[in-house]
Amino acid sequence: MTKPAPIDLRSDTVTRPDEQMSAAMAAADVGDDVLDHDPTTRALEERVAALLGTRSALWVPSGTMGNLIALCLHLRRGDRFLAPRGAHVLAHELGSAAWLAGGMPEPLDWDAGPGRPVPAAVRANTEPDTPYDALRTTLLCLENTHNEAGGAVVPPHEHARLAAAARDAGLRVHLDGARLWNASVALGVPPAALTVGVHSVQVCLSKGLGAPVGSVVAGGEDFVQEARRVRKMLGGGVRQGGVLAAAGLRALDRIDALAEDHETARALADGLTELGWEVGAPQTNMVLASVPDTRLTLRRLRAAGVLAVPMAGAIRFVTHRDVGKADVDTALRRIRGAGL
Amino acid sequence: MTKPAPIDLRSDTVTRPDEQMSAAMAAADVGDDVLDHDPTTRALEERVAALLGTRSALWVPSGTMGNLIALCLHLRRGDRFLAPRGAHVLAHELGSAAWLAGGMPEPLDWDAGPGRPVPAAVRANTEPDTPYDALRTTLLCLENTHNEAGGAVVPPHEHARLAAAARDAGLRVHLDGARLWNASVALGVPPAALTVGVHSVQVCLSKGLGAPVGSVVAGGEDFVQEARRVRKMLGGGVRQGGVLAAAGLRALDRIDALAEDHETARALADGLTELGWEVGAPQTNMVLASVPDTRLTLRRLRAAGVLAVPMAGAIRFVTHRDVGKADVDTALRRIRGAGL
Amino acid sequence: MTKPAPIDLRSDTVTRPDEQMSAAMAAADVGDDVLDHDPTTRALEERVAALLGTRSALWVPSGTMGNLIALCLHLRRGDRFLAPRGAHVLAHELGSAAWLAGGMPEPLDWDAGPGRPVPAAVRANTEPDTPYDALRTTLLCLENTHNEAGGAVVPPHEHARLAAAARDAGLRVHLDGARLWNASVALGVPPAALTVGVHSVQVCLSKGLGAPVGSVVAGGEDFVQEARRVRKMLGGGVRQGGVLAAAGLRALDRIDALAEDHETARALADGLTELGWEVGAPQTNMVLASVPDTRLTLRRLRAAGVLAVPMAGAIRFVTHRDVGKADVDTALRRIRGAGL
Amino acid sequence: MTKPAPIDLRSDTVTRPDEQMSAAMAAADVGDDVLDHDPTTRALEERVAALLGTRSALWVPSGTMGNLIALCLHLRRGDRFLAPRGAHVLAHELGSAAWLAGGMPEPLDWDAGPGRPVPAAVRANTEPDTPYDALRTTLLCLENTHNEAGGAVVPPHEHARLAAAARDAGLRVHLDGARLWNASVALGVPPAALTVGVHSVQVCLSKGLGAPVGSVVAGGEDFVQEARRVRKMLGGGVRQGGVLAAAGLRALDRIDALAEDHETARALADGLTELGWEVGAPQTNMVLASVPDTRLTLRRLRAAGVLAVPMAGAIRFVTHRDVGKADVDTALRRIRGAGL
Repeated sequence: MTKPAPIDLRSDTVTRPDEQMSAAMAAADVGDDVLDHDPTTRALEERVAALLGTRSALWVPSGTMGNLIALCLHLRRGDRFLAPRGAHVLAHELGSAAWLAGGMPEPLDWDAGPGRPVPAAVRANTEPDTPYDALRTTLLCLENTHNEAGGAVVPPHEHARLAAAARDAGLRVHLDGARLWNASVALGVPPAALTVGVHSVQVCLSKGLGAPVGSVVAGGEDFVQEARRVRKMLGGGVRQGGVLAAAGLRALDRIDALAEDHETARALADGLTELGWEVGAPQTNMVLASVPDTRLTLRRLRAAGVLAVPMAGAIRFVTHRDVGKADVDTALRRIRGAGL
Repeated sequence: MTKPAPIDLRSDTVTRPDEQMSAAMAAADVGDDVLDHDPTTRALEERVAALLGTRSALWVPSGTMGNLIALCLHLRRGDRFLAPRGAHVLAHELGSAAWLAGGMPEPLDWDAGPGRPVPAAVRANTEPDTPYDALRTTLLCLENTHNEAGGAVVPPHEHARLAAAARDAGLRVHLDGARLWNASVALGVPPAALTVGVHSVQVCLSKGLGAPVGSVVAGGEDFVQEARRVRKMLGGGVRQGGVLAAAGLRALDRIDALAEDHETARALADGLTELGWEVGAPQTNMVLASVPDTRLTLRRLRAAGVLAVPMAGAIRFVTHRDVGKADVDTALRRIRGAGL
Repeated sequence: MTKPAPIDLRSDTVTRPDEQMSAAMAAADVGDDVLDHDPTTRALEERVAALLGTRSALWVPSGTMGNLIALCLHLRRGDRFLAPRGAHVLAHELGSAAWLAGGMPEPLDWDAGPGRPVPAAVRANTEPDTPYDALRTTLLCLENTHNEAGGAVVPPHEHARLAAAARDAGLRVHLDGARLWNASVALGVPPAALTVGVHSVQVCLSKGLGAPVGSVVAGGEDFVQEARRVRKMLGGGVRQGGVLAAAGLRALDRIDALAEDHETARALADGLTELGWEVGAPQTNMVLASVPDTRLTLRRLRAAGVLAVPMAGAIRFVTHRDVGKADVDTALRRIRGAGL
Repeated sequence: MTKPAPIDLRSDTVTRPDEQMSAAMAAADVGDDVLDHDPTTRALEERVAALLGTRSALWVPSGTMGNLIALCLHLRRGDRFLAPRGAHVLAHELGSAAWLAGGMPEPLDWDAGPGRPVPAAVRANTEPDTPYDALRTTLLCLENTHNEAGGAVVPPHEHARLAAAARDAGLRVHLDGARLWNASVALGVPPAALTVGVHSVQVCLSKGLGAPVGSVVAGGEDFVQEARRVRKMLGGGVRQGGVLAAAGLRALDRIDALAEDHETARALADGLTELGWEVGAPQTNMVLASVPDTRLTLRRLRAAGVLAVPMAGAIRFVTHRDVGKADVDTALRRIRGAGL
């Protein structure tokens, strides 16, 4: 008897391309995107720019590179940047913000709710009281949805006020929108309603949308022209990127379907609560659960056939295209069966 | 009447995936290569390591990133590195060697032939005469075939002597083998015969082999483990990279077929010579032609339906999978027809 | 009638060399310290190394450069370093820790008292729970006395436990001892008792000791040899540095005299308390006072002939060689006279 | 019998402050130049700005730091800069141009004479022929007098044409004028005649002028304001810098006296020629001599009581304030006596 496959709730990055997506990749019209331009990549970039309400956009191999390019372009050497505590650029990009972009991070507390700083914190951090040796703060980096806050959503009016506070203080604003699509669906507003006031934004085509590889960084035309140079420097310029862009175009057709992942997450949270777990109410496709011993629980979950990851002192479960309601039911059965 | 399609001899990077390759991509077994490992990527990495005679290997999105990772790992801040004049890391990677790897370049003259420095130059540049302010030289970066030298080949014994001279002086050795496969085929030796003495080597799966995206950087186990960290920092970690690795595996089946590109290049060179052009004898898949006015000639070539690029003051034609003998004949006819 | 000179309590960096020190500078035996070695600089470096209990030491133009060199040598690109919240390397060196040393900062809370983190915080920040994207933490940077904490002292046993926790986790330890002399005098222990377990330490000859220019960074022989290279790169190598080292040697004769500054600080704190100010009990030569409106109060102090600076939301007064008890009495009279 | 002191011709950096200079240092009016401003430093900066014809100027601890600050401000990350082959920023600053300023160097050949590139080379290096991967060239860094060229002078009309060629191509221009005073005296023109068209210039107060420590970087007001920030980041901000600025002010009184060093250098060159040495005709205070075995000759010179250094494959002798005609006669006698 073979062991049943584990239910993989570690991340929405584990999704595999389905047949339609594979077919689109195989059929993609491609060119050399470094030498001149790849038509499918170009089509993807235009569609994302339109969705986000920016003038221009650029495909990049990963969200980390999209964020890194933005930081490199917005920050001069030694500038300080603000970001919500636990933001991906602070905690999950291996120090590239410092080494590569030369920026000094300053985390902002979550005074407006999970993952959500307040405009007053932006202002407080841009009024140096000791001018002679003050760091120069030049960038606010937002994140929506906020990963370490369990996929928490920043509503449009709050986003707009944060961006306005930053702009009033002369800062530039970058939005890490790796999961902006989830925020858009959860809030019932178009993605462009969540990019008001930004100078640049990064969105992922992998994660919930299910493309195997790829993100897009978007902004004004000058920004994207310079971003293309930095992408080349970092080694992110690729040749027949159209094979990936074709997957990206298919992925964009699935934004509305993210609602199913959110529903599945709620079912998981409800089930865990019934089992006596301490879980937060999921706003999108993540469930954060607090347990006494994270490592031990993760090991026991794995033994029971349920995969999750540690995140900010808790356990993070993420729902995605490749797990349905039935899988969540199975997972809950396994958890109960293991006495967890 | 529509204008006939141009013959694209700008670079071997313009090749498009064929049906077999597309099918392999569509059928690839994939996983999340950032979270744990993608099985197809892993298979590709193992196969490349075996071909190159290294302990380990890592997929990267581009040759530029492969070289950059190697430079970052071999160079401490402010170290000097040696490379043949016109090397890709010096001239075609937009300054990332300095900005990102923090290295001061020192070009070595081609005293042994096109693209080929001599061991004495390595020694001369590692014996500082003014120790109190001397740059510390710690890396030799070779390139085989050498792009700006028109695809020139460094033979195994010369490579080995250069690497030995560097190691004797305490230097590390990196090989930019973006087109190492061409050198291997032209010389009739296995690729591993051309990596003797190196600490790291980068090879491309795009270019002549025809994969749409991807390169591999290879070396010892510690090197590759650290390379994985730097790749993540640079934004080169991707998720279901297996879709690209599957294309890479197919590409590796075609190494021997590069001999056809070399033959096509000789046919092109012969034809141009007959037309009175001043061309060097091609060693692999490139033809360098000297003309009085590079820009003007390139424009007239383009008008005639033949695409090439400027390179080091000359015009570079590159043959590849997507142009055959018949295309070269057509190109030559067009060139003659245009009175060039 | 001329306006009386203000009492300058902004910083102990405002001290001017006295006649003895100027005479020592004028009489210094000097050499070219870049070309070979300056004898007076050498003597100073040996004396500081002996005081700090290190093998070797290197003169640098400023404490900022001493800290920066240490960070550059201890941190690989993108490494994370820990430092008490508000540490000088985090808040007062203009981002050089990120841009130049490539380090991602992580502030540690003051759980053991003002400016004093606990060993548990070091341990908690060196056990990543998400290994696949974890920052690599490699350095603990301590500060004694801690400036933003109002010159607060870290006692030897606490320092030793912090350093041990860091070393146990494989970290290196740097001590920003810009005012280590003050800590030594306040605690009644030799300076070397406060450097236990460190890999490097920086001490200032300006500030309380009154040299016009200069600091020293100390550590093992390999560390100092590399530090000399980085100093040259940063532009900190100077020629006849003996003129400054002579002042530094005189400054070291005055360590015990710092006790007077501490006494003066207590007198100032007592006087302010009598006037109804909210001040913390000074541990060394600084007094932090909380006022409702920092900027307004500073302006009114200035108008009254008393100079101070804002620091961490409060007002910082610093006593030093050039202000005595009588000056503090004058300052208090002026403050009372201004109705403050 | 004691061994007679060696004649030190290694560099003009070995000069020691004389009594007048020491007295000026001891009597200097000083302040805290980081906190607000040091009056003597301010006076020095204003005097240098006036001499150089710039709007503003900033004291720095070394010429290396002055050059480094300029490179950091003129270069964006990964930009390429042009400099005459063997320039100090290329060969004698330990890679800081790459690591710290992020610049890719491109050496220009000496087609107009020793140390002197031609305007056509500037133009040729600013017209990329392969735009898609071209380095962006943004800075020309000149050097007058040119150290590796044996103190060779760039005349004003040549300097102006080089600067104009750079500006026409949109480049910025920095002048490493560590020994600009020598060029000014040798040419009989004011220093400002040699700064035409530059955006920044660095001059040394040590070297021939004899100050123990210090250089000045000068340019427009915005440039100097930013330079002050970068100086602080690099650790070059000092407190009572007036003690050194006072020496710098005295040093500036001695510009005309450099003519004596030039005369001494000619006497040395003539003497060496008479002894059969192969020496170039000195243009300022340096003599380059070609010998079959540099290391051996230097050792024998040292044994005979004459100190020099290796430089660009030759031996460099430098005359300065602390060696007069009589010392040169002694040196020549010793060289002859040693059979050299």
